Amino acid sequence: MRDSFRHRLDDLVASLVNMSDLAAAAMRDATTALLTNGLGVAERVIADDRIVDMARSACESDAHLLLALQAPVAGDLRLVIAAPHSAESLERMGDLAQHVAETVRRRFPREVLPPVLRPRFSHMADIAIDLAHGAAEALRTRSSGLTSSVSDADEELNDLHRSLFAVLEYQDWSYGVGAAVDAVRLSQCYERFGDHALSIVRRATFVETGVMAS
Amino acid sequence: MRDSFRHRLDDLVASLVNMSDLAAAAMRDATTALLTNGLGVAERVIADDRIVDMARSACESDAHLLLALQAPVAGDLRLVIAAPHSAESLERMGDLAQHVAETVRRRFPREVLPPVLRPRFSHMADIAIDLAHGAAEALRTRSSGLTSSVSDADEELNDLHRSLFAVLEYQDWSYGVGAAVDAVRLSQCYERFGDHALSIVRRATFVETGVMAS
Repeated sequence: MRDSFRHRLDDLVASLVNMSDLAAAAMRDATTALLTNGLGVAERVIADDRIVDMARSACESDAHLLLALQAPVAGDLRLVIAAPHSAESLERMGDLAQHVAETVRRRFPREVLPPVLRPRFSHMADIAIDLAHGAAEALRTRSSGLTSSVSDADEELNDLHRSLFAVLEYQDWSYGVGAAVDAVRLSQCYERFGDHALSIVRRATFVETGVMAS
Repeated sequence: MRDSFRHRLDDLVASLVNMSDLAAAAMRDATTALLTNGLGVAERVIADDRIVDMARSACESDAHLLLALQAPVAGDLRLVIAAPHSAESLERMGDLAQHVAETVRRRFPREVLPPVLRPRFSHMADIAIDLAHGAAEALRTRSSGLTSSVSDADEELNDLHRSLFAVLEYQDWSYGVGAAVDAVRLSQCYERFGDHALSIVRRATFVETGVMAS
């Protein structure tokens, strides 16, 4: 019974790690679609989002079943409690990648981003995807060793998001209101993707120590 | 011991209901500041946000302590598990109200919203605040009877948010890029405020039934 419990806990963690990898890959592909105006890639990201959605639903059921049938304690209890919430964060990360891809599809064949913004978005995407890998690592190792580098990266992402407003408002922005609104919403996707990844790492700290990182 | 446990559960619920009331009041006041360009009201909303932040932190500690010391089961267990996540949603709702107020302060003495958008935002605020009251009610009664009217209201809020983009992009928008970007970000505050309220109601369904509403 205990062995089977241990296996099911391991499966739960493996499923979360897999969801992190899927979310990171979805954001990488959505960014490729954004920067190359790739409609085919965008459509694949949109179609594949249901895989993460189903994984989240399975993970939630598994965690509630473990809770009901096994009455776990201490660190195991914290892991089972944290799992559905990390799965929810990962599903939202997938949704944010999907949102980037949908914007590419909606505007096609027009390009969404003016050339002047592409390096900024490429950089934001690199950080966001690194954060998703950090979340996967924190889940895999069940440890919080990455928290400070992860929160620095998240802070950099927030700074990049905030500084976009200065670009749109104070410089010679000649691409119109629609392009500015698209840029803000896309930038927010990367920012929120990073925030969700950070929340997963914080939750890993809670699982390890019983104290929620502030 | 059981009596004391029961009291502490009741206190936990009362604290969440109180946070819902604070979040609703913060959004109401932030909206007043937005629609009347009221700097004083905006500053009070910004200063008061720490009350919700502290309440969230206390609620999280209380729930973890109940979990560690009392090993609750069934519905009580679900309540103790759900509480910190509802507190997190409520803290974010407070942050969104604060963000509306900060925008008023940042643009002062200029008005943030052009007159043409004010009725739209007033309507969005009414729905968002109703949703917060619905969340308070679901927490107070520990029941999910409100789910369908709450999710209809949330859907209306999402529709209002989406239709803003048509106003900004396709009509004769003469207020500049900065005002359009502000409007989108503010509209998103109300939309996300409603989404968080809905997630609290869904969580109340889970506490009552053991099944997460989809």
